[in-house]
Amino acid sequence: MTDTTATGPTTQERAETDLTNRVLASFAQTGDERLHQLMRSVVEHLHAFIREVRLTEDEWRTAIDFLTACGDITDDRRQEFILLSDVLGASMQTITVANPVVDGVTESTVFGPFFVQGAPRIPLGGDIASDAPGQPCWVEGVVTDTHGRPVAGARIEVWEADDSGFYDVQYGDGRVAGRAHLFTDDQGRYRFWGLTPTPYPIPHDGPVGHLLAATGRSPVRAAHLHFMVTAPGLRTLVTHIFVDGDPQLAIGDSVFGVKDSLITTFDAQPAGTPTPDGRDLHGRAWSRAAFDIVLAER
Amino acid sequence: MTDTTATGPTTQERAETDLTNRVLASFAQTGDERLHQLMRSVVEHLHAFIREVRLTEDEWRTAIDFLTACGDITDDRRQEFILLSDVLGASMQTITVANPVVDGVTESTVFGPFFVQGAPRIPLGGDIASDAPGQPCWVEGVVTDTHGRPVAGARIEVWEADDSGFYDVQYGDGRVAGRAHLFTDDQGRYRFWGLTPTPYPIPHDGPVGHLLAATGRSPVRAAHLHFMVTAPGLRTLVTHIFVDGDPQLAIGDSVFGVKDSLITTFDAQPAGTPTPDGRDLHGRAWSRAAFDIVLAER
Repeated sequence: MTDTTATGPTTQERAETDLTNRVLASFAQTGDERLHQLMRSVVEHLHAFIREVRLTEDEWRTAIDFLTACGDITDDRRQEFILLSDVLGASMQTITVANPVVDGVTESTVFGPFFVQGAPRIPLGGDIASDAPGQPCWVEGVVTDTHGRPVAGARIEVWEADDSGFYDVQYGDGRVAGRAHLFTDDQGRYRFWGLTPTPYPIPHDGPVGHLLAATGRSPVRAAHLHFMVTAPGLRTLVTHIFVDGDPQLAIGDSVFGVKDSLITTFDAQPAGTPTPDGRDLHGRAWSRAAFDIVLAER
Repeated sequence: MTDTTATGPTTQERAETDLTNRVLASFAQTGDERLHQLMRSVVEHLHAFIREVRLTEDEWRTAIDFLTACGDITDDRRQEFILLSDVLGASMQTITVANPVVDGVTESTVFGPFFVQGAPRIPLGGDIASDAPGQPCWVEGVVTDTHGRPVAGARIEVWEADDSGFYDVQYGDGRVAGRAHLFTDDQGRYRFWGLTPTPYPIPHDGPVGHLLAATGRSPVRAAHLHFMVTAPGLRTLVTHIFVDGDPQLAIGDSVFGVKDSLITTFDAQPAGTPTPDGRDLHGRAWSRAAFDIVLAER
């Protein structure tokens, strides 16, 4: 290496910087200004990463193989690139950036790969479980705006894993269970039967699982129940409720979805405790949770 | 948004920074220190990108779909992730970082996705073209170390596209053409018949091609002939030679592989010009190029 001045960049540093600048310049003809901005930032950070860590050619090859393996395992039911984004906190950072903190508004968290369009509609007080195994759980609350006004007719999508740790779509047999949508009543209230959430690992038999193992990380997600709430003129909320007392909260949620405000009390109800709607649970224990939702204005 | 102090970070900024810090901390148990360093840098740059551009959830979804499409088109003969790395200059930056500039040593460039292990051996002066169509080209040179000592028995792999712009493997019919390996003689000399290189587009019918189109970039690579040179005790050289006068040099090589030192004169030889080895080209025009190679010590 040749250092042509006492304090200036070396020949090597110049070669690296010049290359980055040539790549940035190659995007100068991008018609869409936002795309131009995104590509410039991608290139700047990608090149800075390579230069900072002094990436080796073997490591580059490992990265290519890793992405290729993510592609190989991805299909209609498995989305390894979303899992990768999730475990790197990129999904959660996108959510955080895209849903700025507003005082009093219910916080957002990750969407995850298991939402399905077209889940069945249930009436207020209906059961989302279908045949999904697990302990029954009564969930209720009210949806309001930031002025405390109830939001009538808000659409609430809810979905969750069964107590084996699987969403319906993971079984691959076409079953629909543990997911539904319902609408708030005139007072903004909602209520439904679901399952008491249990911790489960994200799919970890693929490249993302191998990465977690190599880095000493748990693949387990803190127990949760997904919500997506939409209403005209209000910001769509994608969130979960987490279970107060779940030990995984201390270990760490594998996708960084936990926010303190979303940790909810799930009150254990011994077998025989009367249910809010008179449902006969045939002697099973159940739980109940209350989750009030505040939507931001758009 | 709430700004709790006049000059400190806002609630929103703290939320974003705290998230990044939680993700970084999650890698603390990584056993391999190098992997730990790589993951920390990946997370820092990925999060910085998302925060800087204020990535939207739709844009995140587009990125997931883009990577998924790269996975879908990738198979044994098509490697979209390498193409992506190439057009973002990441491949070339890795080469640049991993092969520091050494005065007098032949410069490196991208490996590309079209090298194949086990290409046939040819004798000195043999023809790599097989049935690949194109104008014959005589290439010769000498391989030395940085002290000018000839390197005998250096293994030289050479490969190139035909004049339709395709490598043999792109035809998918099992043909082997336009690639071979040979060894330098006792004086470090090599010589072979290849094809005069012609510009060709990288495969651009997939997501990477769509990205190039959306950003107004040419998918065309400057005309080149690939070399990989290995010899005991010396640094492996992966490089190309480019064709002086190729108009694509001014437009820009789509993978940023060009270095001035690799631009080589290909002397046009009119039909009937005697060949160096007496080969009868049956009245065809041909070209000749000289490329001396200097390998670095390891």
